[in-house]
Amino acid sequence: MSDVLGNDRVWIGFDLGGTKMNAMLFDSAFEVRGRRRKKSRGSEGVDAGVERIILGIQKLLEESEVSPDRLGGIGIGCPGPLNLEEGVILELPNLGWKNVPLKRLLEKEFGCPAFVCNDVDSGMYGEFQFGAAQGARTAIGLFPGTGIGGAMIFEGKIFRGKTGSCLEIGHVPVMADGPFCGCGQRGCLETVASRLAMSAEIAKAAYRGQAPYILRVAGTDLANIRSGTIKEAIDAGDKIVEAIIRDGARQLGVVLAGTVNLLAPDVIVLGGGLVEALPKLFLEEVGKAIAARIMPSYLKTYELRVASLGDDSGAMGAAAWARHCVEG
Amino acid sequence: MSDVLGNDRVWIGFDLGGTKMNAMLFDSAFEVRGRRRKKSRGSEGVDAGVERIILGIQKLLEESEVSPDRLGGIGIGCPGPLNLEEGVILELPNLGWKNVPLKRLLEKEFGCPAFVCNDVDSGMYGEFQFGAAQGARTAIGLFPGTGIGGAMIFEGKIFRGKTGSCLEIGHVPVMADGPFCGCGQRGCLETVASRLAMSAEIAKAAYRGQAPYILRVAGTDLANIRSGTIKEAIDAGDKIVEAIIRDGARQLGVVLAGTVNLLAPDVIVLGGGLVEALPKLFLEEVGKAIAARIMPSYLKTYELRVASLGDDSGAMGAAAWARHCVEG
Repeated sequence: MSDVLGNDRVWIGFDLGGTKMNAMLFDSAFEVRGRRRKKSRGSEGVDAGVERIILGIQKLLEESEVSPDRLGGIGIGCPGPLNLEEGVILELPNLGWKNVPLKRLLEKEFGCPAFVCNDVDSGMYGEFQFGAAQGARTAIGLFPGTGIGGAMIFEGKIFRGKTGSCLEIGHVPVMADGPFCGCGQRGCLETVASRLAMSAEIAKAAYRGQAPYILRVAGTDLANIRSGTIKEAIDAGDKIVEAIIRDGARQLGVVLAGTVNLLAPDVIVLGGGLVEALPKLFLEEVGKAIAARIMPSYLKTYELRVASLGDDSGAMGAAAWARHCVEG
Repeated sequence: MSDVLGNDRVWIGFDLGGTKMNAMLFDSAFEVRGRRRKKSRGSEGVDAGVERIILGIQKLLEESEVSPDRLGGIGIGCPGPLNLEEGVILELPNLGWKNVPLKRLLEKEFGCPAFVCNDVDSGMYGEFQFGAAQGARTAIGLFPGTGIGGAMIFEGKIFRGKTGSCLEIGHVPVMADGPFCGCGQRGCLETVASRLAMSAEIAKAAYRGQAPYILRVAGTDLANIRSGTIKEAIDAGDKIVEAIIRDGARQLGVVLAGTVNLLAPDVIVLGGGLVEALPKLFLEEVGKAIAARIMPSYLKTYELRVASLGDDSGAMGAAAWARHCVEG
């Protein structure tokens, strides 16, 4: 059976977030041929959730007028922890999932290879293939959000541990007896420099009356203090908001300095909503902190860049990773 | 021409230290067939120094009754900074060398491929091929001495930057406004947890009268407070010496915890004279500190071991790396 795309293989990338799903279909030249976005709806449970993923892929194929036997592979980026080899989601707390053999379920349904990978890894692989990290030998990505995601692409491949992903830059220890962390530890980088940690500092400043713009538009609920609000507050002159963000960026830079000393990357990519809202501030402050703290011999050996694919990086990277795994 | 080793290729590994040179010759089964150790004699200058290396290799071949045309390759481990691709020692302050094209000089002299690599990398590659890190997928080495050496073997290869070596664990920032470091920075791990840093703390304690054994046998000159002296002082009951070493080991462990979170090694090797003098103490204290600070999901994913090749690791690893580069 032939269809509008000819006879080449097509690839699907699926970004399974805790709150959103983003699915994209690519032709063999990696042009976008279709996309679907949905909420993840955690309350449905595992079976209904997997069913939604399968239905989403089926509809994406239908809408794109592509026959399923044309599928070269499916890549799916998921929050961890994962068993990468077997393609099992070991735990996905936001959706209440445990031990979901997603690779096997998708391969059975669609009759093509499927690959499960960490969502930060797939996003960074997307930036490597199509975005800010193209051409890099060693590219490190840092994505401050609710937590802080980290990833590395080394010589064209996602750098991973034996069974799971790694590059957990957000969990590098930076403070003895520091704030509690979601991972069960305390004093990890993300307890002081994630968007969530900075939002909490901003909420405290608002409560103290030091951030009038924030207090007016968001109150003291840190769930309301999002990337856009933070940018607006800085533009509106809330000086302490700018100081908090710059200090968080500085702390990211200090840990990145140690990471440069360890891994000698040629490209460092900063991404996520907050960085994309304030790209100039982050490039400046993170860049200054890295340069101030690395070994002098590593100065000028790397470029610091802002991610360029936005929310599509995960789906694009997952599809490209599936192709890499199938075609090498 | 035939000789006692038959017709297989032989390999030479050369460890060029700031104070000592160690050269070893291996047959194709990597059995040791000869060795020479010499002082490095910095005062001679570059030409005489290179001449000594060449003469040393010639004598090693003669003593082992091996014809030079049997040489498969020469590996040479050197302190940095290096240009690895071109095999140039950019700077070797202890010997007063600058821009020495060692690879080219050795290849011209011996008519076989030569490979320059970082001395910590070659030592760790030796541990990977023949010692404590055999069979590892991702092995990280940490060697506290005058500074702190770090290295990683990943999927059978030395992990390197684009032009030079990396894994500078000793220069991960651990303290704002910390002690000055030899690299030009301050507050690097090695300013608080190298043998040199710990010896200085011990010398202060001796000066204050808190380390009576040290004061008696070494005085307050930190150059006299060597690994053996430190072990003896602990055995003799200088409590503060033990506390200082345990605290240094703890700080190594905290930085290794961050490194585990980043790189998910399956093996971590601790080495160097001080660790080899006090293996139990280091395994215990570093192990405790890593476990106390890593992400809980990485617990039990790695083994902590003490290096097993001692001073020969560098020459063995350099020879094995030369073979790897030639034979793949």
